[in-house]
Amino acid sequence: MRQIFEAELRQVGDDLAEMSRLVESAITKAGKALREADLQLAQEVIASDKTIDQLEASLDERCVHLLAQQAPVATDLRVIVSALRMSASLERMGDLARHVAQVARGRYPAKAIVPAAADIFAKMDEAAVHVAERTTRLLESRDLEMAQAIERDDDLLDELHQETFGALLGDEWDGTVQEAVDITLVGRYYERFGDHGVSIAKRVSFLVTGDFPEDHQQP
Amino acid sequence: MRQIFEAELRQVGDDLAEMSRLVESAITKAGKALREADLQLAQEVIASDKTIDQLEASLDERCVHLLAQQAPVATDLRVIVSALRMSASLERMGDLARHVAQVARGRYPAKAIVPAAADIFAKMDEAAVHVAERTTRLLESRDLEMAQAIERDDDLLDELHQETFGALLGDEWDGTVQEAVDITLVGRYYERFGDHGVSIAKRVSFLVTGDFPEDHQQP
Repeated sequence: MRQIFEAELRQVGDDLAEMSRLVESAITKAGKALREADLQLAQEVIASDKTIDQLEASLDERCVHLLAQQAPVATDLRVIVSALRMSASLERMGDLARHVAQVARGRYPAKAIVPAAADIFAKMDEAAVHVAERTTRLLESRDLEMAQAIERDDDLLDELHQETFGALLGDEWDGTVQEAVDITLVGRYYERFGDHGVSIAKRVSFLVTGDFPEDHQQP
Repeated sequence: MRQIFEAELRQVGDDLAEMSRLVESAITKAGKALREADLQLAQEVIASDKTIDQLEASLDERCVHLLAQQAPVATDLRVIVSALRMSASLERMGDLARHVAQVARGRYPAKAIVPAAADIFAKMDEAAVHVAERTTRLLESRDLEMAQAIERDDDLLDELHQETFGALLGDEWDGTVQEAVDITLVGRYYERFGDHGVSIAKRVSFLVTGDFPEDHQQP
């Protein structure tokens, strides 16, 4: 019985890591689609979000099934409840990648991000890809250095998000309203992406150490 | 044992309804703060978000405790897992109300929303307050007419959200970049508020009917 349960628990962990790999691929492609006005890549991200949603649904069912069949307590219970939470975060990260891709697609063949803000968004993209890569590694290995790195990536995303407003509201801004809207929305998507990464980082840290790093905060 | 369990389950339901009443109050005040540039009201919303966060944390702990102590199955299990999900949605709705209030506070003593978009946002505010009121009534009564009404409110919010872009990108727009940014962000907050309401409506519908209205979708 215990053996089956442990195999099932491992499967939950594997599914989370698999979701995270899909999210990592989605945000990487979405960023490239945005930077290079690559319509095909944008379409790919948008289409592939369904796979992430389906994986979430099956993972959630597996968790509920485990709760019902095994009545886990203590750490096992925390692992399963956390998995439910983390799958929701990963699903949202997939949505956010899709939203970025939708903006890229909506402006094609033009680039959604004007040259004046391109540097900031290249850095946001890089930080978001780091969040995604480290989330995958954290879920695969439970290496808490990844959790700390995610928190730093998120701080950087918050700074860069502020810089987008600096670019928009500075004297040199001469873009259109559409360009301002796109920067505002995409900046927000990236910023939220980091928040979800931190939420996962905190949950894994809690599972490993028993200590929730800060006040209880949902993404 | 069963009696205690049922009392605990009722308490989970009561806590969700209480969270929803706080969210309802927060979004009502945030909308008013935004419309009337009411700094005190904005501060109130921002400060009171902590209470919603705390309620979520204690509700989650109660759910995990119930899972550990009672090992519920079937409907009871679904109720508890759904409560964990719904508390996360309500917590996010509280955050979104806080974000609206923060924009109102940031522009004080000016109004964040320019006259050209005031009508649209008055309607968004009204629809969001309806979502919040109906979510409370749904959680209190499980009256599925409320769930349907929330879906309609959300459709309206989506339409109004599109109208904000119409106002921003139309020929008559002559606002500043800051005003465009504020409209973009606040419009997005209201739109997300509706999504979370729908997520709760679907979960309650599922608990009552056993039927999930559409594809599995997380807020």
